[in-house]
Amino acid sequence: MTDVREVLARKRDGDTLTEEEIRAIVLGYARGEVGDEVAAAFLMAAFIRGLGTEETIALTRAMVDSGTTLALEGISRPKVDKHSTGGVADGVTLVFAPLAASLGMAAAKLSGRGLGHTGGTLDKLESIPGLRTDLAPEEMARQVEEVGCAVAAQSKDLVPADGALYALRDATATVPSVPLIAASVMSKKLAVGTDLIVLDVKAGSGAFMKTPEEAAELAAACLGLAKGWGRHCRAAVTDMSQPLGDAIGNALDVAEAVSVLRGEHAGRLAELTLELASRAQEALLGVAEAEARERAGRALSSGEALEAFRRMVEAQGGDPRVTDDPKGVLPRAPVVEPLVAPGAGTVAAIDAEAIGLAAVDLGAGRKSKGDPVDPAVGIVLHAKVGDRLGPNEPIGEVHARDQDAAGAAAERVTSSLTLSEGDIAPPPLVYGWHDAG
Amino acid sequence: MTDVREVLARKRDGDTLTEEEIRAIVLGYARGEVGDEVAAAFLMAAFIRGLGTEETIALTRAMVDSGTTLALEGISRPKVDKHSTGGVADGVTLVFAPLAASLGMAAAKLSGRGLGHTGGTLDKLESIPGLRTDLAPEEMARQVEEVGCAVAAQSKDLVPADGALYALRDATATVPSVPLIAASVMSKKLAVGTDLIVLDVKAGSGAFMKTPEEAAELAAACLGLAKGWGRHCRAAVTDMSQPLGDAIGNALDVAEAVSVLRGEHAGRLAELTLELASRAQEALLGVAEAEARERAGRALSSGEALEAFRRMVEAQGGDPRVTDDPKGVLPRAPVVEPLVAPGAGTVAAIDAEAIGLAAVDLGAGRKSKGDPVDPAVGIVLHAKVGDRLGPNEPIGEVHARDQDAAGAAAERVTSSLTLSEGDIAPPPLVYGWHDAG
Repeated sequence: MTDVREVLARKRDGDTLTEEEIRAIVLGYARGEVGDEVAAAFLMAAFIRGLGTEETIALTRAMVDSGTTLALEGISRPKVDKHSTGGVADGVTLVFAPLAASLGMAAAKLSGRGLGHTGGTLDKLESIPGLRTDLAPEEMARQVEEVGCAVAAQSKDLVPADGALYALRDATATVPSVPLIAASVMSKKLAVGTDLIVLDVKAGSGAFMKTPEEAAELAAACLGLAKGWGRHCRAAVTDMSQPLGDAIGNALDVAEAVSVLRGEHAGRLAELTLELASRAQEALLGVAEAEARERAGRALSSGEALEAFRRMVEAQGGDPRVTDDPKGVLPRAPVVEPLVAPGAGTVAAIDAEAIGLAAVDLGAGRKSKGDPVDPAVGIVLHAKVGDRLGPNEPIGEVHARDQDAAGAAAERVTSSLTLSEGDIAPPPLVYGWHDAG
Repeated sequence: MTDVREVLARKRDGDTLTEEEIRAIVLGYARGEVGDEVAAAFLMAAFIRGLGTEETIALTRAMVDSGTTLALEGISRPKVDKHSTGGVADGVTLVFAPLAASLGMAAAKLSGRGLGHTGGTLDKLESIPGLRTDLAPEEMARQVEEVGCAVAAQSKDLVPADGALYALRDATATVPSVPLIAASVMSKKLAVGTDLIVLDVKAGSGAFMKTPEEAAELAAACLGLAKGWGRHCRAAVTDMSQPLGDAIGNALDVAEAVSVLRGEHAGRLAELTLELASRAQEALLGVAEAEARERAGRALSSGEALEAFRRMVEAQGGDPRVTDDPKGVLPRAPVVEPLVAPGAGTVAAIDAEAIGLAAVDLGAGRKSKGDPVDPAVGIVLHAKVGDRLGPNEPIGEVHARDQDAAGAAAERVTSSLTLSEGDIAPPPLVYGWHDAG
């Protein structure tokens, strides 16, 4: 029997823990045999003293072993999982999964719900009438084999230690630790049997990691875990200094995704999704970069990706007409207020987090776990850094339950824009790629 | 409202906390508004990052403010409190309190029970038939005024945060931190209204602090707290590399104390008590060192200190005949087995902790909080480091419930002695004195 107090004392003093010691804490905590106070002391000691690569691998393995895994057996196509560390107007998954399916890959994605200023893919998808995300493991595997993609809710039995440890980290000021974040992110990816993990590590004001350097550090830690696990992983550090797409909401995000899938909407969201799909093709299908990019673009313009989306929605019980008439099918907010530029000038900065929080206040997101979300409300903002705006130029819309909420949100969105004189270069979309496996 | 997570984040990053921040954690925890996980994370961060003098003062003040204090008003004589950090055969309080009373001081002492290898003064005193230690505050003050001394149980309402935090430190490997120990020791002393605190900080194998240097560090931290509080404190670092007195038990300790008070028993226990009483007289009565020592010696040889003990025992409901006939009044164990030297040679070392644990196994102490203790059993060991022993020379006795327990304890005691050839110098009794206020 490992004495957990001895383990705490060793990490407290900066020693390197063994796999057995880390398992004693993490699995003991998941089983309820180790108390909150011991796990909290462990997290604080691990935060301050750090965890080495082997320790982080052991932590991740223990987290995965705390629950069941999703083997996704019997799928003939190469399987890809795409994960974003969270941002604003980040609807990539809604486009990526059907795009990958249309390119011959199998996109199997377990998602979460939105919390704080970032949205959740499940909330977005569930704005499609009838659509369900509570797919059983066999059901999900069958859909991935037949349709090529599925986006489902993560089961409570998958990596249960992660939810428990995350709540404890939130309560004890031990969230912003690279090894602890990497273990949390990767445990949920490694518990699912895919051939490639594509990580989109966001950097900027709207993301958890505020600089590309911090994001690269997290990407490296995640790749270290994938390597330790013998899994193939590619990680991009991408810009989240402004909202990625234009829509911040649930139905509004779906409508934007449909528009991208119809090839009607160019821009940073479409660009990034094409980039991720190209890198996935390179890795899984052995397609060279330029050709991969061309194939991905063709899948959008030909309607093949849209068709995969339609089939996925239908397989999950949703109304497939969303692909033809999103406005007719998706819920709509009673008040739509136009957004106009707060003055003349070039957009120098957009506070993505402030806009995300304005959308939460409209009802599109959650302040606390378990809160309901309003599928119809949200914000559409077309302006991006570098755009030149004229006075009172239309830049988007606020979709709200009432006029007061709309006015308040409009005020917050326009004041989140910083205008200046002269030219402003847009920030890079992708800061760099990192590989493992 | 202070956000406790913000406080945790600041200590986590090595910042210095404000008094308000420390109070938010400690008083919040004492009131049940701050959870175990937050307090545990705080303790681990404080352990690793350290606490400065001002932070430790704030911690101690918050602990004192978590409960009631004992003002001890209406006492005409200068009041002294003596505290030992815990050792083996450390019966100093039983002698010191009546000795101080007989010298014109008022000795007011709140004590605890034994845990682990160290004994507890309350357990020892309660081996005197009829004696009670649950004195109400007014009752204690009245007794101190009339008799000159009282030894009572610490009320649950006095520094309740200490008990709660100590249990958490024990569970989270955050016990051995000098500022946390100092705050724990001093909060209980500062909560009692005395004119002088005499600290006996033990150093050696039988103590928590293993070296005189570590003990001096703890003494300095305690003195820093006294100074911050504007209280007069003198601290000695004393030897605990071997048992201080000869008796390790409860009734056996009382019998030894009576023997010292009767002036019949010279040795390190008597020596140290005289030293502490002399330093207290210097500080409180303005008596010069040599004279103070002479007065203390006279109080023992004249029977005045013994008379003060008799009056204290009687005031607390105990059988006062214990001063005349300890063996007749105190409970006795059915089996008394003689201890003999394990060979011929000079005693080079005695493992005090091993002997303390042997006494616990006989039933004299507690393995867990709340366990009952057997007042009659224990160990008497006359041998000290530097003594020359002949083969099979009698060196003491084991007092036990049965022959098996006696044999096992005798074996452990003799094997805790290290014998060698030639002369061995006894360790110093007092390593040094430190002062504040």
